[in-house]
Amino acid sequence: MTAELLLTNVRPLGGEAIDLLAREGRIAAAGAGLSAGAGATVVDGGGRLLFPGFVDAHAHMDKTLLGLGWYRNEVGPTLIEKIENERALRRERGIDAYAQSSRQARLAIAAGTTHIRTFVDIDTEIGLGGFEGVQRMRDDFREALTIQVVAFPQSGMLARPGTVELMETALKNGAEVVGGLDPSMIDRDPAKHLDVIFGLAERYDADVDIHLHEPGELGAFSVELIAERTRALGWRGRVVISHAICLGGVEEAYLGRLIDLLLENDIVIMSHGPSGLRPVPSIKRLREAGVRMCTGNDGIRDAWGPLNMPDMLLRAFIIAYRNNLRRDDEIEMVLDIATHGGARVMGDAAYGLMPGCRADFVVVDGETHVEAVIERPQRWLVVKGGRIVARGGECLV
Amino acid sequence: MTAELLLTNVRPLGGEAIDLLAREGRIAAAGAGLSAGAGATVVDGGGRLLFPGFVDAHAHMDKTLLGLGWYRNEVGPTLIEKIENERALRRERGIDAYAQSSRQARLAIAAGTTHIRTFVDIDTEIGLGGFEGVQRMRDDFREALTIQVVAFPQSGMLARPGTVELMETALKNGAEVVGGLDPSMIDRDPAKHLDVIFGLAERYDADVDIHLHEPGELGAFSVELIAERTRALGWRGRVVISHAICLGGVEEAYLGRLIDLLLENDIVIMSHGPSGLRPVPSIKRLREAGVRMCTGNDGIRDAWGPLNMPDMLLRAFIIAYRNNLRRDDEIEMVLDIATHGGARVMGDAAYGLMPGCRADFVVVDGETHVEAVIERPQRWLVVKGGRIVARGGECLV
Repeated sequence: MTAELLLTNVRPLGGEAIDLLAREGRIAAAGAGLSAGAGATVVDGGGRLLFPGFVDAHAHMDKTLLGLGWYRNEVGPTLIEKIENERALRRERGIDAYAQSSRQARLAIAAGTTHIRTFVDIDTEIGLGGFEGVQRMRDDFREALTIQVVAFPQSGMLARPGTVELMETALKNGAEVVGGLDPSMIDRDPAKHLDVIFGLAERYDADVDIHLHEPGELGAFSVELIAERTRALGWRGRVVISHAICLGGVEEAYLGRLIDLLLENDIVIMSHGPSGLRPVPSIKRLREAGVRMCTGNDGIRDAWGPLNMPDMLLRAFIIAYRNNLRRDDEIEMVLDIATHGGARVMGDAAYGLMPGCRADFVVVDGETHVEAVIERPQRWLVVKGGRIVARGGECLV
Repeated sequence: MTAELLLTNVRPLGGEAIDLLAREGRIAAAGAGLSAGAGATVVDGGGRLLFPGFVDAHAHMDKTLLGLGWYRNEVGPTLIEKIENERALRRERGIDAYAQSSRQARLAIAAGTTHIRTFVDIDTEIGLGGFEGVQRMRDDFREALTIQVVAFPQSGMLARPGTVELMETALKNGAEVVGGLDPSMIDRDPAKHLDVIFGLAERYDADVDIHLHEPGELGAFSVELIAERTRALGWRGRVVISHAICLGGVEEAYLGRLIDLLLENDIVIMSHGPSGLRPVPSIKRLREAGVRMCTGNDGIRDAWGPLNMPDMLLRAFIIAYRNNLRRDDEIEMVLDIATHGGARVMGDAAYGLMPGCRADFVVVDGETHVEAVIERPQRWLVVKGGRIVARGGECLV
């Protein structure tokens, strides 16, 4: 960590140009005409755009196939086929979670991501191998990336005895969040699946993040069950429902009641602008109702498909496109979700561009921040904790 | 036009490496170990990927705001608001169709596009100004881009007396295609709107391309009316319905009957993977039924919104994402729509990578053609009619 970094002439969120002084990892001052002490690193931002660090609040770093040669995807259409295909591929290819998550970390840093919440598959076949690999990676990158680990039973939990015990071990050894998924469609016992998840959350004082792909009324029923348990445990503000596809597939009156449940329990929705022909949750509808949101890139170049990339500006574009958000104020809302929304979910109270915040930021070419979502310029400079971690699109870590 | 161009060591559509010899604008030979005559330009492709030129079969080159500084979009949500906002902006800013379409042409060439079908707004306010500007641009770029012009009544036709006469003048002076739009929602008289469109098509021996954003059963009714007129006029294979959002919004049994109408009349569907939360036509469903398809970038950076860019690889990505096409064979289908599908709609019988075809092709870095859709590498080389028109992402025209 350099003692001081002075970044001059940058435009935060499209505003007037300022200088930014980082000292001992924090933003010490922000304003016009700042000067630094002797020995400081000084960078002329040249009037470029300044963003706070991007937050990928939904990743699967343990299983990316990045760097392993192109994977020709021929998997069938169902969720079960995709899960089975992935488990078979992991056996055949011996995917190394440490090496693969490290590859993704470097690409994410190069693209301006400073925070990642990553799900790690835990099952009775892989055991804690993936978790341990990701923990090693997290340790390597601790000064360059804020990483949160979710213990995630991708292949089911009740269906595979022994999985819960493995999740407990992960939670004892550093996983901060308990993950669940599709309580009806995977474990086929929604109440029990969620009881176990919230039981683990209570025992290990952990936040909760549940993948919910279940459509329409089935998924909406899961939202109700999650809200009931959030209230019972007093876990307000500590639960994320990821995807929540069902919020795009129920009638308006019912959607209103579900939104009330989300608001009462301060449950956060993670939406990444899902692929597909079916209706998906409206970002704008949820935000305007006051629901907190975050987003992420989901799995990158893995057995599930090749469409995602480790670039949060591309993610912002995808969300805008999927939601038909064309106005500048709407796309600015998406950027807020991809930055402040995610940082709050990850519990980072020192996030932002104000003095006192940790010095995590990104500098890119461009006229406006919304244009940067459309053009997705190379990241000119990425700073984490006051240290330059990427420059000209290249990770320096 | 150079007499000979020898491109060695390129992989057409992911296959084995070949050489390609272009002579007098055509592909003279394709295969291993070709040699060129004295004075030929020789380019070592270095094992890169070879695509036929990309075909943007749905553009609005006359009204892009590219290069004019960022336009802060604050337009309202309805179609009418967007049309009115655009007409007001054109007045205020004095958008020059020649300059703007030329800007877009250069960016399209740099991105490997060799063919564009462009709609040109014709109304009683702008008259033929936009058409004349685009005609001048087309003339400038005639060796670098195959361009087709559609006379397009964006602001309505029956609603604005005098518009039909202006469209006739355009058709007499070089527009090849008659455009229409939303016969019920804009002109509010679907039968008469379509009778006029098909009347012009007959009189000027012109193809037809109708923008159809009308949802559900209303749009489906328009599809029926278009099919009836296509059959009556004997215009089989000469009619495109663009967007055809309604094909994503009717029941399966009715969709089947609409598809039968499309097949009987060989009506082509242009879909660009529309933005929005609502269901859209399934590319895969239509293709598997045998419906011909093409695609395009629609309006780029204009008063309608900033989301589109003049890059057909990005378009292929958007279509794949919107349709949840993750398998390699599915994304290859999208590439076929963005190349051969569009070229056939534009009536280019000399299109392709076979000997005898016009030498229109694109070379990019990458392992597979599907990877190129995901990574969207800079276009390393773009050749049109045997002549290098772009290199390293820069247009040379």
